[in-house]
Amino acid sequence: MATTEQLSARIESTLGRALSRAGQPGAPPQLAEAMRYAVFPGGARIRPNLCLAVAASCGDDQPRLANSAAAAIELLHCASLVHDDLPCFDDAPIRRGKPSVHRAYGEPLAVLAGDALIVLAFETLSSALLDAPARAAHLLRITAGSVGMPFGIVAGQAWESETDAILADYQRAKTGSLFAAATEAGAVAAGGDSTLWRIVGERLGEAYQVADDIQDVVGDAAKMGKPTGVDATYARPNAVAQHGLDGATRHLKQLVCDAVESVPPCAGQAMLQQMILKESKRFAPPPTPKRAGQSAASIA
Amino acid sequence: MATTEQLSARIESTLGRALSRAGQPGAPPQLAEAMRYAVFPGGARIRPNLCLAVAASCGDDQPRLANSAAAAIELLHCASLVHDDLPCFDDAPIRRGKPSVHRAYGEPLAVLAGDALIVLAFETLSSALLDAPARAAHLLRITAGSVGMPFGIVAGQAWESETDAILADYQRAKTGSLFAAATEAGAVAAGGDSTLWRIVGERLGEAYQVADDIQDVVGDAAKMGKPTGVDATYARPNAVAQHGLDGATRHLKQLVCDAVESVPPCAGQAMLQQMILKESKRFAPPPTPKRAGQSAASIA
Repeated sequence: MATTEQLSARIESTLGRALSRAGQPGAPPQLAEAMRYAVFPGGARIRPNLCLAVAASCGDDQPRLANSAAAAIELLHCASLVHDDLPCFDDAPIRRGKPSVHRAYGEPLAVLAGDALIVLAFETLSSALLDAPARAAHLLRITAGSVGMPFGIVAGQAWESETDAILADYQRAKTGSLFAAATEAGAVAAGGDSTLWRIVGERLGEAYQVADDIQDVVGDAAKMGKPTGVDATYARPNAVAQHGLDGATRHLKQLVCDAVESVPPCAGQAMLQQMILKESKRFAPPPTPKRAGQSAASIA
Repeated sequence: MATTEQLSARIESTLGRALSRAGQPGAPPQLAEAMRYAVFPGGARIRPNLCLAVAASCGDDQPRLANSAAAAIELLHCASLVHDDLPCFDDAPIRRGKPSVHRAYGEPLAVLAGDALIVLAFETLSSALLDAPARAAHLLRITAGSVGMPFGIVAGQAWESETDAILADYQRAKTGSLFAAATEAGAVAAGGDSTLWRIVGERLGEAYQVADDIQDVVGDAAKMGKPTGVDATYARPNAVAQHGLDGATRHLKQLVCDAVESVPPCAGQAMLQQMILKESKRFAPPPTPKRAGQSAASIA
């Protein structure tokens, strides 16, 4: 079974090649730089790691396809961060501990960098299409569905503009969808059954969102590399506001448990369950508000 | 050979199905509405018509693939209009004779509508992938290349943020690339040779951009359904500013001639040449500034 370091190396090199192609000689240099700035250095790369770990667990017989899916999912995640940080949304001054893309390169290039990263994601995903066309078609459907309308992250972000958003629907679209795509895509790339794996990503995505909501209330902005208190500022749905801190923390633990238990029988089952537990500790909040920030990490 | 009306019907119905899927029950209703607003009613649909006309000329033996390519190109075009109109770019109050998307739905939903339309374009393009995987892979490469980095419309828009943009490079990326993709994609969808067809789209795209530059200087905003004088306001490259009105007009005529002459021998050669001449009259400017606006049409 591949080690975490080997999976990371595959992700970084696939991302690196994609960004190099996008920024080749003849490209507008500032936009090329802004795109690279949005992708490197990365956060925890949770989604692409999850994707490749699932692919490894399913036999990983088409590694180029798995790499392209993992990289595409990370590029779409980075694109969503760039656009979510824009002045018309969060107007976030920092991201991953450095100025957000629009603060560093201006708003026009931030809009374009997000657009170009979305396009690059689909270009990357299509690059290994002919290795296994039926799987690639499925991957394109899963990935587009997880980011677009009606139930992807763009839809999730749009629920913030609606007056009667339901917390669960909102979170499922905004965060859960890309996690679900990560596990589904990992399985499909390796010829596995996506329906068995979707639930693992869904639970993890929900857990991640609840952890993010908790950090937004009790976390330390400096350690997280992004602002806190944003949900309250924008009166947005937040698990702590809805269930209280204890309720949200209990819910988070239950979701991680559910994710671990839902890993289907496969060669890498134990490895994957361990990885989920380890990753979840990186984004799990401290037990009490008094210790806020102590175990927080840069989690985007 | 298919009539123009038949080609239009195929485009509108493919677009309609794509938008219905995006806005199905459970989708955030305002974003679904904003996306539909950006796509319907359309402008002249020049690019998808060109794509299907080329496919028809090449035998059109995979019509679902041709339809998906034509619709994807139009969705990408609409997405680029929505984002180009944003306050951080043109801040255009009107488009196609009605309020621009951000004026009608607000800036957050305009950003998201553009994003969702890009995703929908790739989803639509992938929908007929298994009909002919090798052609689909080529179509995805062409389409992503025409809209993304380093040479697509996003790159073209980014050249506006650079201090030393070259007019020809800028226009080739900003407008030419999607026209070139339209003719290339039409050929590839029908099993034709894309390299023979690229030049037709390139010349037409350049002609269209020069016509747009002329209209920006001498056109009538009401008849065009969008503001004029924008290039001067933003000190942007413009063919009239560079070559004078007479020079730009001569250049435009030459480009249309070149496009007509570059149509390769095929069953529909005469039909396609006629269509190009007819379309070019719709966006050709009047012969003198005094008659400005008289032959202008809503051309986006």
